[in-house]
Amino acid sequence: MHARTTTTTTTCSMHNNGVRRPVQKYQVAIIGSGNWGSAIAKVAGENVAQQPELFEPQVKMWMQNRDLADIVNTRHENTKYLPGIKLPTNVIAVPDLLATYVEETCRKLRGHLRPDAKAVSLIKGMSVEDGEPQLISELINGKLSPFSPKTQPTPGGSLLDIDVSVLCGANIASEVAKGGFSEATIGYKDRQAGEVWRKLFHNPTFRINTVDDVAGVEVCGALKNVVALGAGFCDGLGLSSNTKAAVIRCGLAEMRKFAQTFFSDINMQTFFESCGVADLIVTCFSGRNRKVSEAFVVTKKSFEALEKDILNGQKLQGTLTAQEAHEVLEKKGLTDEYESPSSFARFPLFRTIYQIAFEGLAPSHITAF
Amino acid sequence: MHARTTTTTTTCSMHNNGVRRPVQKYQVAIIGSGNWGSAIAKVAGENVAQQPELFEPQVKMWMQNRDLADIVNTRHENTKYLPGIKLPTNVIAVPDLLATYVEETCRKLRGHLRPDAKAVSLIKGMSVEDGEPQLISELINGKLSPFSPKTQPTPGGSLLDIDVSVLCGANIASEVAKGGFSEATIGYKDRQAGEVWRKLFHNPTFRINTVDDVAGVEVCGALKNVVALGAGFCDGLGLSSNTKAAVIRCGLAEMRKFAQTFFSDINMQTFFESCGVADLIVTCFSGRNRKVSEAFVVTKKSFEALEKDILNGQKLQGTLTAQEAHEVLEKKGLTDEYESPSSFARFPLFRTIYQIAFEGLAPSHITAF
Repeated sequence: MHARTTTTTTTCSMHNNGVRRPVQKYQVAIIGSGNWGSAIAKVAGENVAQQPELFEPQVKMWMQNRDLADIVNTRHENTKYLPGIKLPTNVIAVPDLLATYVEETCRKLRGHLRPDAKAVSLIKGMSVEDGEPQLISELINGKLSPFSPKTQPTPGGSLLDIDVSVLCGANIASEVAKGGFSEATIGYKDRQAGEVWRKLFHNPTFRINTVDDVAGVEVCGALKNVVALGAGFCDGLGLSSNTKAAVIRCGLAEMRKFAQTFFSDINMQTFFESCGVADLIVTCFSGRNRKVSEAFVVTKKSFEALEKDILNGQKLQGTLTAQEAHEVLEKKGLTDEYESPSSFARFPLFRTIYQIAFEGLAPSHITAF
Repeated sequence: MHARTTTTTTTCSMHNNGVRRPVQKYQVAIIGSGNWGSAIAKVAGENVAQQPELFEPQVKMWMQNRDLADIVNTRHENTKYLPGIKLPTNVIAVPDLLATYVEETCRKLRGHLRPDAKAVSLIKGMSVEDGEPQLISELINGKLSPFSPKTQPTPGGSLLDIDVSVLCGANIASEVAKGGFSEATIGYKDRQAGEVWRKLFHNPTFRINTVDDVAGVEVCGALKNVVALGAGFCDGLGLSSNTKAAVIRCGLAEMRKFAQTFFSDINMQTFFESCGVADLIVTCFSGRNRKVSEAFVVTKKSFEALEKDILNGQKLQGTLTAQEAHEVLEKKGLTDEYESPSSFARFPLFRTIYQIAFEGLAPSHITAF
C-alpha cells in the first residue's frame, strides 16, 4: 500500500448524544492541521457557530506540534501553515503526537468512535493494493471500523461500518482561507451524511455540491494529475490550445473510464462537478504537475532530476499516480495498443503519458495516442 | 430571425446514382469558401481521394469571387483566405455570385437536391425566432427542403426532409489546414449520415467523434461564447484560476440546462465531446470573446466601443448570443433571481453575464451568481 497523502486532512464527526438532551448534535473534529486542515477548520468553525441546532459549538483540530497548538489556542492563527489568517475562536487545537499517516491516525481512532460516527476525507490520491486501486475513503473506512476486515461481525452481531464521504474540487487552501470564490464537491454514499457535510462546509464563497458517488469523486482527485502531465507536455512542445484542450478532454474521458472500470455505480454527473471538469482545468493550466511536465520537455531532464531541482526532492503527485494507474491497468490487460473498436477497454492517453514519462517515448507522441 | 453566421460553411452531399452503376457514391459540395470552408475542403478532398468506393472523386467548393475561383483551380490555393496552404487538386472551385447568407444560399439550392441528399452545417451560432431558439441546422433543413413549411407534403404525398447534421469542436481553420492536431464532434440524427460525415472528415490529426444529438452540439457551439465573457470578466478582475474554473464549470452546466430546456433528446455525452468541454476550454482561455471581455473590465469601455477598437467594428459573437439567450430565457420566465431549490429551472450565470455586459452590474458580481 503506497498512500500518496501529503496532507492528511480527515474530518470526523460524531453524534453527541447527551443524556438529557432530546436533540442530537454533531461534534466536529479535524484530523490534520496543515494549510488545508486549517483553512477547512476556519470554514467549519464559522458554519458551526451559525448552526447551533445542528452542531456542537467547538471544532477540534488535532495538531502534532504542541507549541503550534498553544499558538493556535491563544492567537487563533496557525502561524506556521496558514499565517495571516484568523481562525474562529471556536476552533480548538488539540495536541497529538501521532504521525500524519492515514493508517496510524485511523488506527488510533479505532474503537473510540461511536458506531454512527461519520467521516469525510479531504485527501487527494489513490492507493494500490496488489495491483488493485483502493480508495483512500475505503482505506479509512477499513481502518476506522473497529473490526477489520469489515466482514467480521461486532460482538453484538452487526457489522460496524463507519460512513466515509469525500470532499474534492477546484480549490486551494490559501484561497479558501482568504474567502476567494471557489467550489468543491462532496461525494457521499449516504445522502443524509452528504447533507450534513454540505451544511458544515458550504458558504457563499466556498460553494459545495453533493453527488451520490464517493469513488468517482476520489478517482477524479487522483487522476487529474496524470492528465496534467499530458497538458504540460503540450505546453512544453508549444502545441496549440486546441491540441491541449483535446488532451484534457481525452483525459477526462479516461478518468471516467477508469472509474467505471474499477468501481461500480459511478455517476456521470460527478465529472461535471467541481471535482471533475473544474479541478481538471485548474490542474492542467496552473498546477505544479503541469509546470514540471512542461520543464521535462523543455529541459530534457528526468522527472527525478526535476523533482530535485524544482520541488526540493518532493515527489510529484502526477508521476506517482501515473505509475500506479499504469500498474493497475497493466494487471487488467488494459495497456495494449489501441486496436479494437471497443474504445471503452483502452486508455491510450494514460498509456502514452506513462511511456513518455518513464519509457523514453518522444513527447511529440502526446497527440498520437 | 437574426442568424449570426460569419462563415457560411455548409457541406452538402448527394447520391450520384449513375444509370448503369450498381454502387451509389456521394458527391461532396462545400458551400462557403472562407478559411474554414477552404480548410475543410482540404480535409475532405484528401479523404475523398482515399475512399473512391464511397465518394465521387471531386469535391466542389462554391465561391462568390470568380477571380479567386480561377486562382484556386489553377494554383490550388485560396490565396485570399487560406494563403500558403495547398489544396488537393480534386477540390474544384465553382464560381457562384450569391451572397453568403444561409437563407439565400439554401433557397437557391432548394429544388435542385435529390430527396436523399444530406447536409452538414459547420456554422457556429444560434438563431432566435419569436423568442424561441432555432438551430441553424433546422433553418437549413427548412430552407433546403423543397416544400416549406415542412408539414406540406410533396406531390407524391411524402414529406421531403433533407437530413442535416452538424460539425463543431475545439479547432480553428488555420490549424486544421496545417495539420495541427485537433478534434471535432459530428452531431447526427441519422446514424448512417453521421458515419458518412465521419468518413469524409476524420484523419489522424483531425479526429472526429459522432454523437446522436444535433441540438446539443449546436447549442454548445453557440453558448460557449457567452461563458467566455464570464471567463474574461474573471481575467479582467484578476481572480484566481479556481474561480475562473468555477465559472467555466457553471457555464457548461447552464449550456446543458439550456439545451435540455429548449430541445428534446439531448445526450449528456455531447458535453464531454470536443464540441462541449474542449471547445469551451479553448474559448475561455484563448478566444477573442474572452479577450474583449477582459478589456471590458480593465478599460471600463462599453462592448460597442471595444468592438470598434479591437474588432474594427465587427460584432462579438458572445455579446450577440448573450442577448439572444437572455431574450429566450426571459420569454420562458427563466431569468428571475435564483430563489427556488429547483436549480434546473434557473440560469444564474447567464443572467449575471448579461447584467454585467448590458445592465451596468459591477463585474465583481461574476462570482455572486
